[in-house]
This record gives sequence, C-alpha cells and structure tokens, in this order.
Amino acid sequence: MAQNIYDDKGFFAEYSCLPRSVEGLAGAPEWPALRAMLPNLRGKSVVDLGCGFGWFCRWARENGAANVLGIDVSEKMLERAIEETRDPAIVYVRSDLEHLELRPASFDLAYSSLAFHYIEDLRRLMSQVHRTLVDGGRLVFSVEHPIYTAPSETKFVTNSSGRATWPLDGYLDEGPRSTDWLAKGVIKQHRTIATYVNTLLDAGFAILYIEEWGPTPEHIAAHPDWANDHHRPPFLLISAQR
Amino acid sequence: MAQNIYDDKGFFAEYSCLPRSVEGLAGAPEWPALRAMLPNLRGKSVVDLGCGFGWFCRWARENGAANVLGIDVSEKMLERAIEETRDPAIVYVRSDLEHLELRPASFDLAYSSLAFHYIEDLRRLMSQVHRTLVDGGRLVFSVEHPIYTAPSETKFVTNSSGRATWPLDGYLDEGPRSTDWLAKGVIKQHRTIATYVNTLLDAGFAILYIEEWGPTPEHIAAHPDWANDHHRPPFLLISAQR
Repeated sequence: MAQNIYDDKGFFAEYSCLPRSVEGLAGAPEWPALRAMLPNLRGKSVVDLGCGFGWFCRWARENGAANVLGIDVSEKMLERAIEETRDPAIVYVRSDLEHLELRPASFDLAYSSLAFHYIEDLRRLMSQVHRTLVDGGRLVFSVEHPIYTAPSETKFVTNSSGRATWPLDGYLDEGPRSTDWLAKGVIKQHRTIATYVNTLLDAGFAILYIEEWGPTPEHIAAHPDWANDHHRPPFLLISAQR
Repeated sequence: MAQNIYDDKGFFAEYSCLPRSVEGLAGAPEWPALRAMLPNLRGKSVVDLGCGFGWFCRWARENGAANVLGIDVSEKMLERAIEETRDPAIVYVRSDLEHLELRPASFDLAYSSLAFHYIEDLRRLMSQVHRTLVDGGRLVFSVEHPIYTAPSETKFVTNSSGRATWPLDGYLDEGPRSTDWLAKGVIKQHRTIATYVNTLLDAGFAILYIEEWGPTPEHIAAHPDWANDHHRPPFLLISAQR
C-alpha cells in the first residue's frame, strides 16, 4: 500500500493552506492546461482518481457531467469533500488506488490530478482505468514531472555564471523518493516519461497529447518566485484514449 | 537551412574517429535498443534520414530490406558511404532534410539516427515522413535527449554530497543551442519530449514506444566513464506508426 500522507495531521494542516486547497482549481496554475485537455463533459460519467477535497468533481458536474465518482485514500480529505458537496450525482468512495477495482466500461472520463506519482503499481492501475473506460473514453491526468521527482537534492543551485540550475541526478533510477514536502519523509514514486507513456500504451491506450507544464510569462510576472519552474517543468500532463 | 557541420573539415575528421564511425552500428551503444524497435525488414522499402556513412542502409539490406534510400546533407559522408557500398539496391541522395520532398506512400520504414535534433522545422519533416510511409508504416528514430540538449552548461557538476549532477536549465526554452562538440559552434535544436511526441501526433502518427536510453550496468562495467549517463539519458528513442 502506498503511504497515505494526506491523513498525517501535520501534512494535512499544511496541505490545507496551499492555494490549491483554499482556492480550488483556480489556485492550481496548471489547471487551465489540464482543463484544455478535457473532452466535453455534457452527460458523461466521470471518475476522479485521488479526488482530494472534491474540487474537480464539483466542477465536472457544473460543466455538464451526468455523474461523478470521486475516489481518495484520505479520510480527512473525503470528510471535507463530503461537507462541501451538495449534489447527489457526486459520490465519494474511500479506496487505495493501489488496490482499486473498477467496473468495466463504466466511465467516459478518468481524471487524476497529482496522484499517480504516489502509486507503486502504476501498471495495475492503468489496466484498471483502461478497463473501466468505455471505448473512446479518455484518461487525462497530471503528475509531478520526472525531472522534478528524480534528484537526490531538490533545490536549485546557482552555477558559476550566476544561473539557477536544477541539480539532476538519478533520472533513470526509478523507484521511491523520500522528500520533506509539507512533512518529513513523504514518499513519491519516480518514474521516467518513457515509463508513463509505455505503461499507458501497454494497457491499451493511445496517447493523444503530452504537456510538460511550466509557468507562462504572465504567471512569472505575477509570481516571480515561479521563474525557475521554466528551467525544469514541475508537472507532466497526459491525455490518452481507450 | 540547418547548419551542415558534417562537411566542416575539422568536425568531419573528429567525427570520423568516433567509435560509431569506425565500428559502425556496433560502436553505437544505443543501437541494440533502437534495433529492438524495428519491424521485420524482409522485402521492405526503407529510407534512412541522415544516413551518414551508410552503416544502417547496408545493415537493412543484410537483414532483408528490398531497397534502401539513404539521404544525407553531408557530401563528405555520402562520398564514404558510396565508397563502402557495393549494392545496387541501396541508393544515396544528397539532400537537406529541411527541404526534403518525398514521394507519397513509398516506404515501409523511415529510420533516423541522431539527425532530427539538427532540424529547425521538425513539423514540416514529420509531415513529409508521414506522407512517404504506407499505411501501417513505421518511423523509428533517435535524437539527443532533451535533458541533454537543454542546458547552458553541459558539464556534470559535483554537488556538496560529492554526487555528479547535471546542471539543468532552460528545459522549456526551445530553440537552437550552440555547443562545442568536436568543433566550435555546432548548432542543435533543443525541443522538449512533449514537442517531439505532439509533433508526431499532429502529423498523424500513433506513438508505439518511447525509450530514454541510458547505459546498462554491463555498459558501465565496460566503460566506467559512461556512469553519469544514468543520471541524465543522452538519447531519446521513439517508435511511431502511420
């Protein structure tokens, strides 16, 4: 079972203060890019893998989805999701994505934001997601970018020319990384872009689009501290079709 | 027109001494991975984009290809390719890949080794390659990996823990990079993995497989100086189908 860090009291308190937890989708700078990859949701059945506070579930309903299933392993996150949702067409289920069983041909869209990099057995999960989609159904997801998850030290270093550089190492060493992000010892799974893509292809998906997300000049003007994200993208976004 | 550095006298002399120039395919450590991505060539028509000394053209014929067209912009390389080829089913043509026109539905396989990162207009070339393949035809190619082509300084740096790290910057800044590799001022085009993939998809290809190539433990045992290539892959290999 993957670590359930979101139910760690300290982590949860810190996570709850992030812009994306306070403002929802509008607080996630990569959201417009991810939204642009979504199909029309009108009348569609949607599953959100790692739904957290349920922001996307509610957005999907507001944008025409017929019904939405939100799945998360975190009890604390689902408690708040349920509190903030007044819509009988949204159902939340607590489940570990590592062991999830989904009914065949049940959804038009599987969505996931920043959850798959916690998963140890991505192959199993992608096979489940493929199975649960109807023919032509879509998988749209984001993960932390492999260049971001790889290194043993994850702080920018100023080089001899005064430039900020990302000290990349271990890119091809796939496996767990322990980082101190909001709490000590948060475990994420590093895998390469090739592994994400090939795992999808092996599960039977066709790749539709990939984005290595970085801040736009407008983002950087508004948040100068994001400038370094242009040197190494923080997020990888993928759209695939069954 | 892309720079034709291979006809630079100094560059050519240096390039001719590389293991891959002396030993051919066996001198290229990524060749077994690229070979594993090839379809069965028996009876097939093959085009090699950036054929250099013609090693792959001859290999393709030895492995059953019916005919092979080798294309390169370098006069010096084609001179040696022609000298070393005694096979009327292999034809060499001098052409700049930037302006190449290929006949529709003429090839079963388009192959390219470490040439596309010199191309400025990849979109145009991919469209030409798609057009020249028969339905179901394959494109298999390698390029320098985007993590390798991106940085402003391309030497490993030892960090405070004594680890070798690759000082990545500018990953999302696509465009030319001037490097001093075998000669001064060699121009390569940096683009992201997403751009390679999306350009193929936009041209009408389906992605079949991606490899971010790094040395195996056996490679590193035989060539200890390759160990750092495990930290940032030197090559990106892609297989796609029309």
